[in-house]
Amino acid sequence: MKKPSLPKGTRDFLPSQVAKRNYIFKIIENTFKNYGFLPIETPAMESLATLTGKYGEEGDRLLFKVLNNGDFLSNADENALSEKDSVKIIPSISKRGLRYDLTVPFARFVVMNQNELQFPFKRYQIQPVWRADRPQKGRYQEFYQCDVDVVGSDSLMYEAELLAIYHDVFKAFNLNVTIKLNNRKILFGIAECHGIADKFMDMTIALDKLDKIGADKVVEEMTDRAIGKEVAYKIIELIKNPDLDNLEKAFENTETGTLGIQEIKSVFNYIKNLGLDDVVFDPQLARGLGYYTGCIFEVEADKNSYPDLVMGSIGGGGRYDDLTGVFGMPNVSGVGVSFGAERIYDVLEELNLFPADVEAMPKAIFLAFDDACHLWAFDKVMQLRRKGIAVDIYPEPAKFKKQMKYADARGFEYVIIIGDQEMAANSFTFKDLKSGTQELLNFEQVTAKLA
Amino acid sequence: MKKPSLPKGTRDFLPSQVAKRNYIFKIIENTFKNYGFLPIETPAMESLATLTGKYGEEGDRLLFKVLNNGDFLSNADENALSEKDSVKIIPSISKRGLRYDLTVPFARFVVMNQNELQFPFKRYQIQPVWRADRPQKGRYQEFYQCDVDVVGSDSLMYEAELLAIYHDVFKAFNLNVTIKLNNRKILFGIAECHGIADKFMDMTIALDKLDKIGADKVVEEMTDRAIGKEVAYKIIELIKNPDLDNLEKAFENTETGTLGIQEIKSVFNYIKNLGLDDVVFDPQLARGLGYYTGCIFEVEADKNSYPDLVMGSIGGGGRYDDLTGVFGMPNVSGVGVSFGAERIYDVLEELNLFPADVEAMPKAIFLAFDDACHLWAFDKVMQLRRKGIAVDIYPEPAKFKKQMKYADARGFEYVIIIGDQEMAANSFTFKDLKSGTQELLNFEQVTAKLA
Repeated sequence: MKKPSLPKGTRDFLPSQVAKRNYIFKIIENTFKNYGFLPIETPAMESLATLTGKYGEEGDRLLFKVLNNGDFLSNADENALSEKDSVKIIPSISKRGLRYDLTVPFARFVVMNQNELQFPFKRYQIQPVWRADRPQKGRYQEFYQCDVDVVGSDSLMYEAELLAIYHDVFKAFNLNVTIKLNNRKILFGIAECHGIADKFMDMTIALDKLDKIGADKVVEEMTDRAIGKEVAYKIIELIKNPDLDNLEKAFENTETGTLGIQEIKSVFNYIKNLGLDDVVFDPQLARGLGYYTGCIFEVEADKNSYPDLVMGSIGGGGRYDDLTGVFGMPNVSGVGVSFGAERIYDVLEELNLFPADVEAMPKAIFLAFDDACHLWAFDKVMQLRRKGIAVDIYPEPAKFKKQMKYADARGFEYVIIIGDQEMAANSFTFKDLKSGTQELLNFEQVTAKLA
Repeated sequence: MKKPSLPKGTRDFLPSQVAKRNYIFKIIENTFKNYGFLPIETPAMESLATLTGKYGEEGDRLLFKVLNNGDFLSNADENALSEKDSVKIIPSISKRGLRYDLTVPFARFVVMNQNELQFPFKRYQIQPVWRADRPQKGRYQEFYQCDVDVVGSDSLMYEAELLAIYHDVFKAFNLNVTIKLNNRKILFGIAECHGIADKFMDMTIALDKLDKIGADKVVEEMTDRAIGKEVAYKIIELIKNPDLDNLEKAFENTETGTLGIQEIKSVFNYIKNLGLDDVVFDPQLARGLGYYTGCIFEVEADKNSYPDLVMGSIGGGGRYDDLTGVFGMPNVSGVGVSFGAERIYDVLEELNLFPADVEAMPKAIFLAFDDACHLWAFDKVMQLRRKGIAVDIYPEPAKFKKQMKYADARGFEYVIIIGDQEMAANSFTFKDLKSGTQELLNFEQVTAKLA
């Protein structure tokens, strides 16, 4: 018999891992709720028509497609079949795909449920997504996304709320972070005031690499893309010293740039009393995705606090002026951020930041010496459980050594031993496995110890 | 532009629905934890090799298969392609499928992670599964299962624990249920003591329909399957009056039957002090699945309490002596039950048993009259949130009527109104939307009202 295995890039989660993951999700979810965001869920399978063309060519390739059931070949595209064209045949044999992110399903959700929703609609969504990426360390084909978005308002208060959510969540994790804030309009303003508005995307893509490759290489890349060398150096000079007032002066002749500055100032005005000392204005920040139009955000673990940590961004997002237009509901502004739960897990693990009691396991297990004791102990166990106290019991009066070995291996803090004497005296031998001490307690005392 | 749509048999969940679903999952999960069960998770995609052949021919047909990525046609089975054989081609173009239930993935999990686990291993798992069933009312292609199982022990204490879990969960839902208990060995004993041990499955399948089609039709079905008419009536007589002592006498010459009686008695002995008045011995209960070998369970809403409710079973399970054998790890006994979360949702909805405050929405929303008030209100909102009090704020100082309309539509209990006077006096106009009353409060009073 062949040993069972898992598909590449997928994972089982053991109880201790589930506990740590739930610790992350719970803190994120509680913060979302606190800010008045509401949960929605969408199905794992979406129509391929919903997904295709939304993530670029690369994305289309990385979508998992689900085969139609039944005799799917009878409806297969004859030409594609004879040409053995794997791309062309897909629409005729597959009409569903697995969710690739939570943004496109959310846009579809808003359009389909618009009559049930009040706008602005604040939603969060914590669900897995699937991508046929080549698996590697820290990259999986099935992983969770935690998204929080508002649609139907262009108020910059929401940018402030999202920054505060980032701050509150990472503070709850005891993780020091840097929350970078920029605005696409400022990037456009920089291009425009240097006379290269038409090269906005080229400039942005090059600037995005400044930290990685340094000024000279970025200038090189810009000149390759037909941006003048002098202009390129001027741009780098301007964003290396991120001063809003300086930028504002430089933007005298760019309306878009000026608006970007005003937006950032307005956001800072909203957060000025909130103690968000981890938020920094960073005009270098670009965020790859094309659809952002206003403020953009990115979070990373603080480099000064953790100089040895090698980890990319653990969160990001921004404002998009037309989230739902692609599904026929134009001009609906939205803003949202996402938490990279898998990377956050790795960071908390590496920095040893998970609380010691994260695993919600019972503290104690009952061990019994014979059948009568076992039945008696089971009743007591049930009384504790019905008081809301999680507790376990070895399933039979096996050899004591065997029971103790199990209790040790499982990592219980206490064993509660029931023999004839204990049963006769209505008492409990309560042993602390760490200290090795044991004492004889009555039921009320046991209850108090475990509560 | 084509309107977006969802694949057949899949659903979006609005915030109020997510809240009700989470209410169900939370009660079930808390009870599982209370009894010392630990959470695991398995990936949505399993290897088709793991899934295929485990659910019968029908099941294989209903598995969702995921297309291999890349140029899958280049590896497609040439013969199957030219014959257009949709079944035969699958292994060559698809190596992954979507999880069909939680039992087979659990068995695979136990085998693959056996060195990390201590046995008996008590696990629960609450995750969606996918089946390409024809969608109809109450039946979906994507739905949740809530499973709780123990592997690695044949102690009947676990049968008792599972019955108590059923009892505790449904009591927490305020739903009266009947929890049916039987044992496959008793069914075998009935066949054996009537000399039709070789017709055990035929008998079981026929008896399973007794409630639906009545005694005469069941006898007819048995005689069709070469069971004598007289024997058939005797069998029905025996199980119509489910008396354990009577059965025990009839089982004098069947060891298996006698063992079944002993097992049931042992389970009743474990639960005798637990107040499980909803557990009934029902020798008619068969449960379709072939792999059960000991106790079997089924839960339905109590017919006397809810005579008008039309609903099948809302839970079921049993013991299987060889859960993991199919993956190369033989002789591991397991016992488990499942909660039909989707049906439980429908029952609670129909009987109006969801608590009124199930939707975890903030109670109050702040409304502000101008920009300065809005900024001031936002700070107060943030102070409340950071005390752990969920609260919302309208995103801008829009027309008051518009803000009130939104507050009403969303269903907030209170609005907290901030104008110049409130801001100057550091006070809050607190309006109860149900009663219409309003009062002027200070911040401590607002905090107390919302806490």
